[in-house]
Amino acid sequence: MKMKFRTVFNCIKKINIISVRYYTPRRALMYVPGDNLRKLSKAFTLDVDCIAMDCEDGVALSQKETARSTIRSILDTEKNVTRRNFDRAVRVNPVNSEFCHDDLRAVLTAKYLPDTVLLPKVEDKGHLEWFADQANALIRDEAKIDLIIYVESALAVIKCYELCKYTMELAENGKFRLAGVVFGSDDLCASLGITRSHDGAELLYARQKVVLISKAFNLQAIDMVHIDFKDLVKLKEYCEQGAQMGYTGKQVIHPDQVPVVQTAFLPNKKQVEWATGLLESFKEHQKKGQGAFVYKGIMIDMPTMKQAQNIVDILKLTSSSL
Amino acid sequence: MKMKFRTVFNCIKKINIISVRYYTPRRALMYVPGDNLRKLSKAFTLDVDCIAMDCEDGVALSQKETARSTIRSILDTEKNVTRRNFDRAVRVNPVNSEFCHDDLRAVLTAKYLPDTVLLPKVEDKGHLEWFADQANALIRDEAKIDLIIYVESALAVIKCYELCKYTMELAENGKFRLAGVVFGSDDLCASLGITRSHDGAELLYARQKVVLISKAFNLQAIDMVHIDFKDLVKLKEYCEQGAQMGYTGKQVIHPDQVPVVQTAFLPNKKQVEWATGLLESFKEHQKKGQGAFVYKGIMIDMPTMKQAQNIVDILKLTSSSL
Amino acid sequence: MKMKFRTVFNCIKKINIISVRYYTPRRALMYVPGDNLRKLSKAFTLDVDCIAMDCEDGVALSQKETARSTIRSILDTEKNVTRRNFDRAVRVNPVNSEFCHDDLRAVLTAKYLPDTVLLPKVEDKGHLEWFADQANALIRDEAKIDLIIYVESALAVIKCYELCKYTMELAENGKFRLAGVVFGSDDLCASLGITRSHDGAELLYARQKVVLISKAFNLQAIDMVHIDFKDLVKLKEYCEQGAQMGYTGKQVIHPDQVPVVQTAFLPNKKQVEWATGLLESFKEHQKKGQGAFVYKGIMIDMPTMKQAQNIVDILKLTSSSL
Repeated sequence: MKMKFRTVFNCIKKINIISVRYYTPRRALMYVPGDNLRKLSKAFTLDVDCIAMDCEDGVALSQKETARSTIRSILDTEKNVTRRNFDRAVRVNPVNSEFCHDDLRAVLTAKYLPDTVLLPKVEDKGHLEWFADQANALIRDEAKIDLIIYVESALAVIKCYELCKYTMELAENGKFRLAGVVFGSDDLCASLGITRSHDGAELLYARQKVVLISKAFNLQAIDMVHIDFKDLVKLKEYCEQGAQMGYTGKQVIHPDQVPVVQTAFLPNKKQVEWATGLLESFKEHQKKGQGAFVYKGIMIDMPTMKQAQNIVDILKLTSSSL
Repeated sequence: MKMKFRTVFNCIKKINIISVRYYTPRRALMYVPGDNLRKLSKAFTLDVDCIAMDCEDGVALSQKETARSTIRSILDTEKNVTRRNFDRAVRVNPVNSEFCHDDLRAVLTAKYLPDTVLLPKVEDKGHLEWFADQANALIRDEAKIDLIIYVESALAVIKCYELCKYTMELAENGKFRLAGVVFGSDDLCASLGITRSHDGAELLYARQKVVLISKAFNLQAIDMVHIDFKDLVKLKEYCEQGAQMGYTGKQVIHPDQVPVVQTAFLPNKKQVEWATGLLESFKEHQKKGQGAFVYKGIMIDMPTMKQAQNIVDILKLTSSSL
Repeated sequence: MKMKFRTVFNCIKKINIISVRYYTPRRALMYVPGDNLRKLSKAFTLDVDCIAMDCEDGVALSQKETARSTIRSILDTEKNVTRRNFDRAVRVNPVNSEFCHDDLRAVLTAKYLPDTVLLPKVEDKGHLEWFADQANALIRDEAKIDLIIYVESALAVIKCYELCKYTMELAENGKFRLAGVVFGSDDLCASLGITRSHDGAELLYARQKVVLISKAFNLQAIDMVHIDFKDLVKLKEYCEQGAQMGYTGKQVIHPDQVPVVQTAFLPNKKQVEWATGLLESFKEHQKKGQGAFVYKGIMIDMPTMKQAQNIVDILKLTSSSL
């Protein structure tokens, strides 16, 4: 599923928007309780970008060990690795819990590594250092995993920039690379002393700050969960809002949510047509020596051209890896 | 009115949402001009969480001394201390004004200390150091007051995190503890060169940033004033908006606003029923080993449980101190 | 067009809202491609606050040299300097492009300096240092230009405060002064991997952060461009929104946009009447020793008075320089 990708631009020399070497789409990042083999097996048959086998909040305290050993045995089984078309992720417990050490040991010494480790409730550089030490000690040979960190408390939102920056530094010589950031809206609400409203207006500052910082580091940004899983209309609306802000995917807690999410985080036909036409027109105008020109009644210059290029790139990256 | 409070959780070990030792509700923080004894006397008869005897913006330049001496004589009178059920606060003038030194001397050497000092227009670490020096020198013995700082300029919003952090550090060995942050919307508007709009949309970034930072430090956050004091409908709407963002109270400039505000910053019956039911259900599911489950059509796991716990905690803390 | 201005306040001693020594209104900052002499000549006849002769995004790669030499010859021509009533600005290419050095040389060694240099895509202290070195070396004698920097990427929004602060420091001993910040919404969208929506809701965090930081430094803040240049209704709405947030002007890409923008960024008659009346009333109440009072049904004290003063000041500053 992973693919090498080199962005090639004919008309423009430097565009640093998409500079990742590998692109693994994670439009839907679906949680499945790690202690529930039935749900896990079902999940593996779905058309979903990323399956997050959960050791953390979806698992009861009494089931932590079962979750860990179930996930380990999945990672030890060859057919789960070779016959699949999804990103295989594990959400371990937080660094400052009593479970994280055992979770990481189980997961990172398995026969086959997960593609991605999801690290929740990161708030402190110390959490990241501890994780880096564990990962570097446990992962064999030259293998590297993707790391996705969770920003899900008031403090973490404040420190988001320095947490990302520090993870990037630790990753330089480590056995992981920082691939993305999850915006953990519901734990954030808990840390703010509130319950989430229906429209989520109270989260605007944090939600836009997290995506902005993620993009400043060229990271994927995974948007908040929609726990009212039967309301697919509202889900779609939220997806579009998140995608419009720059989120590249969304947390999912039910299989029914997957197709809605995966469609919403792909440019639609209308967008692609607009973008393709504009890029053509831009090239022609550049040849004629015109930097600014009118396209479908709108004044276009370089920034809008780059926005159009984004649409084409996202489509290409996501499609070619499916 | 103050009470000791230890949060006890049966099912979950670590919840750090409410870690304050004493909880003084300040749902309504009502300003009364310090030079107006009639208004002050009336205020003391009201059912209001916090009365802010004002030396600052509600007092004309020519009345600064009258305000100071009136407040001093109130603080010197025993019956005002023993027979009351409100937090007795004083808003002094800003550190960089010519009045602050005399205000603090009058207030902090009175026979009975105020519960809380409100320090407006903090923008700089130097302001806080100066205040700490004054408070530590003036307050007798082992007494400690609550300090609430005001974030009410563009610069203060930018520096909000470091101002709170530094105040916490100064408080460690000082005769005060940082209890909260006031979001001073109207001075902020002045510093932005604007006049406030009816819906306050222009303040969203600052308003959500200030509450987020306050909560990261486990502080109370007091929301902006509503100067159109006859419009109680809009007031209620603003209260609910603020409470939804995480604010724990609101500045009030008229007695009529008090009941609206104090009701809005308490969880309502419907919320309490939802929360109580969910917590029960959560416990049962944990016993059965289920970390995630459906409650009233919504997928629940740990974060939503914590949100429900918040509702119960806020009600308990506020009610038991009334 | 420039004027000296000393703010005089009779009733209040310290108001630091408008402390700039010179005020050059830039309500509309209109881009004109630097390689298009016809459009430039037409622009010079318009009633517009600021004309930005563009070397950057409005100019095709093949025309960069033409733009540079055209602008140079304009700057060398005396009548363009003496007979004009607009701020003459030049947008050079970004520091990390191959064009910036030549752009600055052409512009800063001309017979007459531009009033303002617009520096796009600033992201790093290094960019500012390089600019400062160039400007200080190229500008003759004691002349000083105004500098306006562009915040137009995710990283720049994050670093906005430190970029402004550092520019102010460099300007202290430099041949330029920092006059303002442009919010470059469309390049920001490109850097977030998105295309701009019609209502721009996805930009709220960045848009309000940038204006807040600008105002903390007493800088002008120039709001985002509206590329749908035929839709003057939406333009007006956006202008009012931006002005309400604290923006002092707006980027403009078509002559038709100018009057709409320049009207919207001036206080209207109703606002001025309200402000004038309130200031009168405030003075009277201060004389009577009343710090807080009711004006047209609204409770007024110092902050609202300052807001009213802003309205009067903006009108006075802008009008007297026209």
